[in-house]
Amino acid sequence: MKFFLTIYILFIVYYPSIAGWIRPHHFNIISRSIHDFHNDRCKQFHTVTQQVDHLSFVNKDTFQQRYILNTDYWQNGRPIFFYAGNEGDIDLFCDNTGFMWDIAPNFNAMIIFAEHRYYGHSLPYGNQSYSKPEYTRYLTSEQSLADYAYLIDYIRTNIKGAEQSSTIVFGGSYGGMLSAYFRMKYPHLVAGALAASAPILQMSTPCESFTRIITQDFLRESSSCVKIIRSSWHAIDRIGILPGGRERLTKLFKLCHPLKTIAELKNWLFDIFANIAVVDYPYPTSFLADLPAFPIRIFCTNVTSSIIDEINTDEEIVKRIVKGVNVFFNYTGHTECFDTGSQGTPSLGILGWSYQSCTEFPMPICSNGISDMFEIQPWNFQAFSDYCFAQWKVRPRSEWTFMEFGGKPITNFRYYSNIIFTNGNLDPWSAGGVNSTIVSSLPAILITGGAHHLDLRAANKDDPQSVIQVRQEIVKLIQKWVS
Amino acid sequence: MKFFLTIYILFIVYYPSIAGWIRPHHFNIISRSIHDFHNDRCKQFHTVTQQVDHLSFVNKDTFQQRYILNTDYWQNGRPIFFYAGNEGDIDLFCDNTGFMWDIAPNFNAMIIFAEHRYYGHSLPYGNQSYSKPEYTRYLTSEQSLADYAYLIDYIRTNIKGAEQSSTIVFGGSYGGMLSAYFRMKYPHLVAGALAASAPILQMSTPCESFTRIITQDFLRESSSCVKIIRSSWHAIDRIGILPGGRERLTKLFKLCHPLKTIAELKNWLFDIFANIAVVDYPYPTSFLADLPAFPIRIFCTNVTSSIIDEINTDEEIVKRIVKGVNVFFNYTGHTECFDTGSQGTPSLGILGWSYQSCTEFPMPICSNGISDMFEIQPWNFQAFSDYCFAQWKVRPRSEWTFMEFGGKPITNFRYYSNIIFTNGNLDPWSAGGVNSTIVSSLPAILITGGAHHLDLRAANKDDPQSVIQVRQEIVKLIQKWVS
Repeated sequence: MKFFLTIYILFIVYYPSIAGWIRPHHFNIISRSIHDFHNDRCKQFHTVTQQVDHLSFVNKDTFQQRYILNTDYWQNGRPIFFYAGNEGDIDLFCDNTGFMWDIAPNFNAMIIFAEHRYYGHSLPYGNQSYSKPEYTRYLTSEQSLADYAYLIDYIRTNIKGAEQSSTIVFGGSYGGMLSAYFRMKYPHLVAGALAASAPILQMSTPCESFTRIITQDFLRESSSCVKIIRSSWHAIDRIGILPGGRERLTKLFKLCHPLKTIAELKNWLFDIFANIAVVDYPYPTSFLADLPAFPIRIFCTNVTSSIIDEINTDEEIVKRIVKGVNVFFNYTGHTECFDTGSQGTPSLGILGWSYQSCTEFPMPICSNGISDMFEIQPWNFQAFSDYCFAQWKVRPRSEWTFMEFGGKPITNFRYYSNIIFTNGNLDPWSAGGVNSTIVSSLPAILITGGAHHLDLRAANKDDPQSVIQVRQEIVKLIQKWVS
Repeated sequence: MKFFLTIYILFIVYYPSIAGWIRPHHFNIISRSIHDFHNDRCKQFHTVTQQVDHLSFVNKDTFQQRYILNTDYWQNGRPIFFYAGNEGDIDLFCDNTGFMWDIAPNFNAMIIFAEHRYYGHSLPYGNQSYSKPEYTRYLTSEQSLADYAYLIDYIRTNIKGAEQSSTIVFGGSYGGMLSAYFRMKYPHLVAGALAASAPILQMSTPCESFTRIITQDFLRESSSCVKIIRSSWHAIDRIGILPGGRERLTKLFKLCHPLKTIAELKNWLFDIFANIAVVDYPYPTSFLADLPAFPIRIFCTNVTSSIIDEINTDEEIVKRIVKGVNVFFNYTGHTECFDTGSQGTPSLGILGWSYQSCTEFPMPICSNGISDMFEIQPWNFQAFSDYCFAQWKVRPRSEWTFMEFGGKPITNFRYYSNIIFTNGNLDPWSAGGVNSTIVSSLPAILITGGAHHLDLRAANKDDPQSVIQVRQEIVKLIQKWVS
């Protein structure tokens, strides 16, 4: 079995590479083969007709938005729990947001997961949705919030007993940003929001923060591990420039296809480091295919096993990294080779987030080689913008995002209310999160030992005490909002 | 001098006429020749570059938005008073919003009047702005609010000492709606809003309310007057169908051009009745050209003077109406003839509101002949929608307006704060206003004896006590918001 990195949940990371923006880095993955929490109820799909363009009147096209509806626990008049779908198939978010299912019975809540336009099956122009600017232009957060507003109204109108139901909006990562935005812009429709691991400030966060947190996660497990990773970049270079060097690296890393460039390998390794930091959960999960509990720990154990005082050869350094990467092999034993990039046409999820990064949400990520274990890769906004123009005929305007939703300065969020911002200290995306409570109605809660939106996942026997407590706090606040 | 009804401020009324929607009714006028309050500072124009499309990224066109800036009273760090411009040249709103100038010295406030896109000189595509759907599509309230957000940010960034200034937004009529919407959607930018005579609910208000209030205003002055108006419609019909009847009516009413249809005359009369109710101020003004104080009273005095028990002839009835209309002649003595409609290309103000009525703000107005003094004219949404499609290639979707801004039911406004809704009991537009206080942070204040946004006008020795008190209340609330 190939170890194919299916890009799915979370964000594509636009990290400046030697290869430039033409082949953007990405990561953030769900293997579709095995889910942590496979929920048959996440296949109960419905559709609703939406305007392609809510915000103007010239284009009268409509499309079918997909959503999941569950009323197993619901009683008349009781709340609606609404998940603001993000960049992918909605059933994947449903499968990985067990928290809503865990607490719905206590609230006799209806559960809705709404698929984000331009992702999954909710494609305004079918498989042509990404084919030209006239079709992509309706992929914005404002349009998706309008979809969600209409969907809530539709449910309240069409399900008897739901007319007066309070709605609580949930979301993680970009979905967490939408969750916060939805409460900000539509307080007449939603009573409160859980914005889990929402990097709502990432567009203006120092670009090195993300890689610094990855590095801290690895340092927490082993400083030797970080030392080896740090030295591996030049080791790879030195092997790569030798005659037959790329072939040697292809073989060492068990790659499915011959390496074309050294940058390709480095990008792929960066993706792996970033990913296992993002999903460094305390129990086995299938984010980034199938991972063991504490994947960084396992990675570093492999890298540093039988360590000697001095590592003398480039080959030895690289072999240790390979051993770390083998954490994937070792865990399931099924992977025969690794693929350093997605093949052929990228999935719509990749296209969508590429477009959104190129418009409202350019999220600078860089490394300086000092506060992080990577090579120096400065962020170059102009180069990124040029990439966006070449790719999509658009240029990013993140100042609009802050103008529309606030956050610059962060204190101007204080005019909003009933939003919980949770972040895990292990999560690189926490760099762009709201990490301090600005006003009491916008509590910022840190989950110690938490990776990316751990709080949204189903309860697990291996959950740290921190997330158990945070979930209790969230439930209390929701009780307050719906009462 | 022709008495030419220059359509300017306020709304075009889409009142179903016998002639259908092809020639929509309109009213709401400012004579550009004489202003109530002519303020040289309303000619201090500036411009700022705005995105034509804030809400998508494909169209990168920009345009120059015009605004008026005054810092005569301003001190560093003190508030910004921002007028959310409505459907017309911004200097006209500036000239007719003396209240902001009156109270600015007390607050050491900076004054800004922002021109609404697609009106005045703020034309995204110059004189082609209304030429095709691809150009008109950016005429929406959301886009204009985004302009205002950018303008405030621009001022705060570029005027030293304004970085931390609180902004209070003012507006009357449609500008009052925008003022409320601006506070709702951008509380991180504006601390509070005065929404004066804002018919924010007119899209869902029973259509006969507007004409009922006009009638009540006339009844308050004279029931005989209303009786004569009521009987005039058939009198006009009976004269009109006679051989040479239209010529006779043309002569009786001193029209500049021969009447083509009876409907044309009736529409024009409806406009006059609606207009003088809207601007039934207690002192002479130049809304609707030059009007005396209490124009309804003067109109009715003329109509009912030397009244006899029984009015026997159609001609006599019509002559009395003509005498009422002559209130305009009598007041300035300059008008030689009346023009029943705008000639040639309507001004951009008409075009703009026509488009906005056909998209976000369809405001049903009808008459039943019972609660009002007009003929029966039912509201026909489908006919209106068809007119819109023929005219602009769009159809109205007012459900979007309520989805976006709340108000259906009205109680869902309660999730917003710091908006004062003022309405005058004489104002037909008060029918669609917020007339009861939903929560304490959204006070609804009635101005007894007030016509359309009387409170926004400069203080006048003939102001009723009610408006004096209301202005004091407004000042107190603004003091609370900016402190």
